[in-house]
Amino acid sequence: MEKIEVKTSQRSQILDITSQVQACLSQQTKKSGMLLVFCPHTTAGLTVNENADPSVKSDMGGFLGRLVPRDPAFTHAEGNADSHIKGSLLGCSQTFIVERGGLQLGTWQGIYFMEFDGPRQREVWLQFVPKD
Amino acid sequence: MEKIEVKTSQRSQILDITSQVQACLSQQTKKSGMLLVFCPHTTAGLTVNENADPSVKSDMGGFLGRLVPRDPAFTHAEGNADSHIKGSLLGCSQTFIVERGGLQLGTWQGIYFMEFDGPRQREVWLQFVPKD
Amino acid sequence: MEKIEVKTSQRSQILDITSQVQACLSQQTKKSGMLLVFCPHTTAGLTVNENADPSVKSDMGGFLGRLVPRDPAFTHAEGNADSHIKGSLLGCSQTFIVERGGLQLGTWQGIYFMEFDGPRQREVWLQFVPKD
Repeated sequence: MEKIEVKTSQRSQILDITSQVQACLSQQTKKSGMLLVFCPHTTAGLTVNENADPSVKSDMGGFLGRLVPRDPAFTHAEGNADSHIKGSLLGCSQTFIVERGGLQLGTWQGIYFMEFDGPRQREVWLQFVPKD
Repeated sequence: MEKIEVKTSQRSQILDITSQVQACLSQQTKKSGMLLVFCPHTTAGLTVNENADPSVKSDMGGFLGRLVPRDPAFTHAEGNADSHIKGSLLGCSQTFIVERGGLQLGTWQGIYFMEFDGPRQREVWLQFVPKD
Repeated sequence: MEKIEVKTSQRSQILDITSQVQACLSQQTKKSGMLLVFCPHTTAGLTVNENADPSVKSDMGGFLGRLVPRDPAFTHAEGNADSHIKGSLLGCSQTFIVERGGLQLGTWQGIYFMEFDGPRQREVWLQFVPKD
């Protein structure tokens, strides 16, 4: 598999990793199939959303922060139960169609790494599976 | 890849696309593997849920509308930040097992296209990857 | 495909199925690719989260119960609309990278079956798709 390095600088942060994911596909020239993008961390997640207006990212981050606040009622001793819950709500993987070596995304779609317990040094793993 | 056309008539709407997805598989007769169903839009999503009682759809749509209301506090200029957030909560893809050309679903499962910013003309993309 | 049997004893319950999933992979020795883990039920789901401190499971279950309560305003006649909604929020499948026959998980990641309408006898389906 391929690996991408991601460095976050805040507790909650959304990073566009679209171009890094596309770069990993360059070795699969002209092949079609499926790409699995996987986050091996439990206080982070992956999502796909608009990459044109940055307010989409900030509205999404703000909403998640209000939906799952850092509630003292959580029992997880590390104090980051909210980060784990947000990770599960978003999910730890995204799957994409690849055609002739190219990642197939909608016009406005970008791939986002969602940090919920940074700042940290993170990894994203990728596996390409050809259809023939 | 294959493409399905979906036409929505309301701002928020849940459409059963199960039979359209199954129809796309008819060319893969007798092959087994994995089917990726992908939504290329950022204000819509895909989910899998009960397709027997229509109240499941309406309860799910009603809940999401209350969870992420059209809040004026959102900053995204197009006024559809709630649609983008609902899209990320549900996710833009679903993956399915295929055996001998047949989509493997549980007894009560249907595949739903979830419109959060219609009415619109939409697409759903499909990629089948055989296991051998 | 492979099948795992899961038995739940409460209405809402989170079960670690990581070792059962890994056991199913033992027949794929030394092959690399992608593993699809699929829940064929509409009042249950699958997630990936920390498997070290059990409080992560209980905090996650508690949060979901408060987010989607058993609200009498739901119209679904079976009275388990909340279970269906929680299933869609978590999702019915998870995809994983496999390298040389081994499931690739992050240090703290476990795979969880999430029961939202038990106690029940449940199944989880698995499909491995090799990359070559």
